[in-house]
Amino acid sequence: MSANTFGTLFRLTTFGESHGTALGGIIDGCPAGLIIDVEFIQQELNRRRPGQSNLTTSRDESDAIEILSGVFEGRSTGAPIAFEIRNRDHHSFDYDHLRTAYRPSHADYTYDVKYGFRDHRGGGRSSARETLSRVAGGAVAKLLLQHSGIRVTAFVSSIGGIHASNVLTAGQPEGIELSPVRCPDADASEKMVELINSLKVEGDTIGGTITCIISGVPPGLGEPVFDKLQADLAKAAMSINTAKGFEYGEGFRAAAMRGSEHNDIFVAGGEEGIKTATNHSGGIQGGISNGNDIVFRVAFKPVATLQQSQPSVNSKGENIVLAAKGRHDVCVVPRAVPIVEAMAALVIADHLLRNRSARL
Amino acid sequence: MSANTFGTLFRLTTFGESHGTALGGIIDGCPAGLIIDVEFIQQELNRRRPGQSNLTTSRDESDAIEILSGVFEGRSTGAPIAFEIRNRDHHSFDYDHLRTAYRPSHADYTYDVKYGFRDHRGGGRSSARETLSRVAGGAVAKLLLQHSGIRVTAFVSSIGGIHASNVLTAGQPEGIELSPVRCPDADASEKMVELINSLKVEGDTIGGTITCIISGVPPGLGEPVFDKLQADLAKAAMSINTAKGFEYGEGFRAAAMRGSEHNDIFVAGGEEGIKTATNHSGGIQGGISNGNDIVFRVAFKPVATLQQSQPSVNSKGENIVLAAKGRHDVCVVPRAVPIVEAMAALVIADHLLRNRSARL
Amino acid sequence: MSANTFGTLFRLTTFGESHGTALGGIIDGCPAGLIIDVEFIQQELNRRRPGQSNLTTSRDESDAIEILSGVFEGRSTGAPIAFEIRNRDHHSFDYDHLRTAYRPSHADYTYDVKYGFRDHRGGGRSSARETLSRVAGGAVAKLLLQHSGIRVTAFVSSIGGIHASNVLTAGQPEGIELSPVRCPDADASEKMVELINSLKVEGDTIGGTITCIISGVPPGLGEPVFDKLQADLAKAAMSINTAKGFEYGEGFRAAAMRGSEHNDIFVAGGEEGIKTATNHSGGIQGGISNGNDIVFRVAFKPVATLQQSQPSVNSKGENIVLAAKGRHDVCVVPRAVPIVEAMAALVIADHLLRNRSARL
Amino acid sequence: MSANTFGTLFRLTTFGESHGTALGGIIDGCPAGLIIDVEFIQQELNRRRPGQSNLTTSRDESDAIEILSGVFEGRSTGAPIAFEIRNRDHHSFDYDHLRTAYRPSHADYTYDVKYGFRDHRGGGRSSARETLSRVAGGAVAKLLLQHSGIRVTAFVSSIGGIHASNVLTAGQPEGIELSPVRCPDADASEKMVELINSLKVEGDTIGGTITCIISGVPPGLGEPVFDKLQADLAKAAMSINTAKGFEYGEGFRAAAMRGSEHNDIFVAGGEEGIKTATNHSGGIQGGISNGNDIVFRVAFKPVATLQQSQPSVNSKGENIVLAAKGRHDVCVVPRAVPIVEAMAALVIADHLLRNRSARL
Repeated sequence: MSANTFGTLFRLTTFGESHGTALGGIIDGCPAGLIIDVEFIQQELNRRRPGQSNLTTSRDESDAIEILSGVFEGRSTGAPIAFEIRNRDHHSFDYDHLRTAYRPSHADYTYDVKYGFRDHRGGGRSSARETLSRVAGGAVAKLLLQHSGIRVTAFVSSIGGIHASNVLTAGQPEGIELSPVRCPDADASEKMVELINSLKVEGDTIGGTITCIISGVPPGLGEPVFDKLQADLAKAAMSINTAKGFEYGEGFRAAAMRGSEHNDIFVAGGEEGIKTATNHSGGIQGGISNGNDIVFRVAFKPVATLQQSQPSVNSKGENIVLAAKGRHDVCVVPRAVPIVEAMAALVIADHLLRNRSARL
Repeated sequence: MSANTFGTLFRLTTFGESHGTALGGIIDGCPAGLIIDVEFIQQELNRRRPGQSNLTTSRDESDAIEILSGVFEGRSTGAPIAFEIRNRDHHSFDYDHLRTAYRPSHADYTYDVKYGFRDHRGGGRSSARETLSRVAGGAVAKLLLQHSGIRVTAFVSSIGGIHASNVLTAGQPEGIELSPVRCPDADASEKMVELINSLKVEGDTIGGTITCIISGVPPGLGEPVFDKLQADLAKAAMSINTAKGFEYGEGFRAAAMRGSEHNDIFVAGGEEGIKTATNHSGGIQGGISNGNDIVFRVAFKPVATLQQSQPSVNSKGENIVLAAKGRHDVCVVPRAVPIVEAMAALVIADHLLRNRSARL
Repeated sequence: MSANTFGTLFRLTTFGESHGTALGGIIDGCPAGLIIDVEFIQQELNRRRPGQSNLTTSRDESDAIEILSGVFEGRSTGAPIAFEIRNRDHHSFDYDHLRTAYRPSHADYTYDVKYGFRDHRGGGRSSARETLSRVAGGAVAKLLLQHSGIRVTAFVSSIGGIHASNVLTAGQPEGIELSPVRCPDADASEKMVELINSLKVEGDTIGGTITCIISGVPPGLGEPVFDKLQADLAKAAMSINTAKGFEYGEGFRAAAMRGSEHNDIFVAGGEEGIKTATNHSGGIQGGISNGNDIVFRVAFKPVATLQQSQPSVNSKGENIVLAAKGRHDVCVVPRAVPIVEAMAALVIADHLLRNRSARL
Repeated sequence: MSANTFGTLFRLTTFGESHGTALGGIIDGCPAGLIIDVEFIQQELNRRRPGQSNLTTSRDESDAIEILSGVFEGRSTGAPIAFEIRNRDHHSFDYDHLRTAYRPSHADYTYDVKYGFRDHRGGGRSSARETLSRVAGGAVAKLLLQHSGIRVTAFVSSIGGIHASNVLTAGQPEGIELSPVRCPDADASEKMVELINSLKVEGDTIGGTITCIISGVPPGLGEPVFDKLQADLAKAAMSINTAKGFEYGEGFRAAAMRGSEHNDIFVAGGEEGIKTATNHSGGIQGGISNGNDIVFRVAFKPVATLQQSQPSVNSKGENIVLAAKGRHDVCVVPRAVPIVEAMAALVIADHLLRNRSARL
């Protein structure tokens, strides 16, 4: 209902611009009694931070989080948990040339049309820096999920045309963080790094995909009809900057499959209850989790800011040339991994609480 | 916030089960003064109806809509518009064998886990018959969009491995309805029909994709951050039964593209204002419409109900065999075309109203 | 968020006009497994019906409810429960003279200003007949509350200047329904009847107050800050047609009290836990129920439609005279008793579910 | 839907505890282009601040606001406006004795029952200090209203049994701030001051009422049925700490009035359109503003914290005696004046935006 709030019962409202005073948010609806591990939240933010390897931008943002409310003696109190991350490394002057320029495939033009003017510094509210607040909110959601034995793991499954070999089980999440591009397939990871390095020379950028696996989800989460679990996951994923596609289970491949091939046959599971022989469904049936791993994939376009000069127009409709400037990533997909996890965690945390009202 | 409500200002709340007394909904937030063309709404429902050709199930549902409120002397009054479609062709006895059986890749098991029991007749609330209410609600949204010069057109872009040649412009929507599978590429359409006929003999089913084009959208619709236009469209599409994937613009292809290739260069448009040379972005930048056609694609899995016997389990965890029964489609994708349009129309109508508060 | 939806988790959306096809609503969020006693719901509707005694209008509305969805084999399924009450006794012609007239202290003028036109028949959406849907929705909420041992009882505490003696305990709710004005104080009831009869002769109307007591509420319901239990009860009550005031506990009297007089001292309650010696707080402290009876009172203005001719203006701004017409009550307060109960039940049912997410 | 969010389109989400790191909030939905006068916001906060006269607590809180986002070059950008007020004057040690004690008629017990534990320092989230965020949010709402020619003015209409003479017109709001108790009736003001001073000696507290007048409201604001303007105002007012009653127009007096006496007769208004001869309705008819002044009144109980020792119990159910401690007001009603104004402004701002979607 509100552009800057996500969730129904476990709700995150965010604020902040790339070069404003601070970014942050309010988590409303976190149940009382949860141990709020601030160091864990900070680590999650660090995973999103640029400058983690020589593949990403050298902008040094310490991104230190401060919790402002809602936590008392280390535990959530049921009151809203507000947090903020102050902006430090402004360099606003870097952006003065963008006050009237419309960068191709950015939000400059659409913001101007919608609002009549915009905070042009570093993209303002449309900057991917906004996702800091999502990662912080998602970290609290993860703490709630951990308490329920649920684990969210994402990794880079492709960059450009280079695909990781099919890694559909949660497997060794450690392998993910060891790769500079967060791809657990070492061969693919190496090729991805090479591709990024070569594109850096060209001043170009490249897209990719992220796969996310949520394990330990109890059956029963998700609401029929509009708030199907996959619908809320799709919205969560597609609200991330540069996301262009979402699929779960077999996804687009399912469109070419036969029913006899795609159906997940149930098998009597003995003490563990009812199981399915396969997981083509991606852990969700009828919009509701069935206890299998939830598996989805998100496609990201290449970053629009290039280290090449580009022709464009300005707000007066005049032709201009945008010079290559600023500090930008060739490929942001590795940095989007914690963002995808955060959004997935927010959705599952919300549905965990919503499901408490399903039955008498 | 509510499983059965969609939208923020233009809101549709739906009700009804496959074999209950009636299906229907309430449209809340339709501006006063809109001419409510009931015949148009009925035509949209007819497009969704089975039995339109020998390719679809022969179940005869007249699906006549009745408007219960909110319309006075042919125009919306600002009060909620309620409507209902009575169920007539019950045959509930057809489903008695499904009271305890769990059909593979259906919602039987997950509903039981979530709610403790379920209305097993024809899938109850999880039946695709629920989408009747969406089509009716979407038809009213379309009337609002038509008033603003916006047009929503969807068509089948693939069934199984058969793809329509790239038809990215709204083109001749008439061609769509002439095809028995709603595919405007006549060659592809013919092959799709052949495929469906051959699968009918085998008792199998097949998936497909639908492409949707929304033209005439003014720039400025969509909210930054969580309610990006693509995020709401993704949720809308992924909430449709059997949808497995969503992409807009270049979608998953963008993941393998370079920035220099994907960027839509702005061009000074003379009297028409600022334009882009290409539309890789699919009509949305920074979550906000830019005036170009909005283009998205949805993947649908094959229907889970087969005309073959299938092994399964029942609610006691016992092995059973499901015999082929009932009347079901080989491929529901053509019938999903008006549903995709309806959901898209609901999203755009909602954002049209939301955008009225963007500026002072 | 939506003018016609009430509640957060237990949600009622209503539709319908006084002289339209039907009134009704959708209850979304009722937990699965609740026995839906349709006869009880009908009885609640009957309590609201006019023509229960010679004190109320003789309009004969059978107001038979039909459940359209969400109930299977007598129990709620977790799917939305839709219901409708068809309008039968239209007499729309009675209202043709009101097409352009603005009745004093009615909604005719404000609807016209807001929407540009209106359904003038019997007040359209602004008619008190709209409360039928509230009573039906509230009846389902009451069923949920009964399951939790919570009871909602309202009665008429004053009409005109005649006040019932202080009846602050739930006492004998039977006495309420025995009184033709739903006042359990027999003496006051008799005087109220006399007052109403004398005003009937004069063609005038009179206001009154209703007191509502909710007993058996567990401590812990209500949300701090904006959704305090009293805030939601106030909104619920003040959304009823002709309500002009709301107070709980000592209410307006508290404004003249000292803290030493108003404070409810806690007493160690032995096995029953902590109690308070008094209940000046009306069962709520800090926005959250404390286990005592919740007590609130609502003031209603006299009905605006008189059996006297009144001067007014029409939509062209011309002076007119409204003749006495139609069938209207001298005092609607007794009929508002089930409406107050329904709104209170909706609030408590909602907070019962919301409270399920308060703790880990 | 969320305990800490208020409003539908113009939304305020708040956070913060009495003795936490900071209080603040996020305003989401403020239209772009509004001049954000930070000094005005600070002045509004100062009006709420204690220590304004010797009648109120001497706690020195500078309560300096910092805007964190959503404002660029002095104007709202359409992005969420976050703000914070850091806590400085903690003295948390003053509250250690309250860790397990339940103060009478406070939220200590109910928070413990609901959440399992609580931040006991100064009442934590239940402290009236939370209203700082409301005043800041309301100040931004006031800026929006000023832009539309709407003015919100509240004043103290009674303290204890001392009533201001009937001051129903917006009159001289300057007179309000000149009175140490914010009562524009100089005689009554003097008596109120005397009463407060005598109660200070006794260590007791006293309640009162506030009247609020909203002028310049265009006709048409408010939504029929549940979100009637008076219903939202009632919720807004009753969500304020210590509020016990709400009435608008004639309020509780209307319950003893006849229809012929209460009805507001329309008069043809010449160039100014249609007017009413009286304003018993308090500016709202059928839930929608009619262009007259909106007038409502709120009752506040006496503050529960006394400068006397009081018997109570602790969380183990043991009898204790609470000694008089801390710094507290005899009467908070004068300080509640800007809070009432803030909540009223939030409601009207929200409905101003909502009304933009009323018509085609």
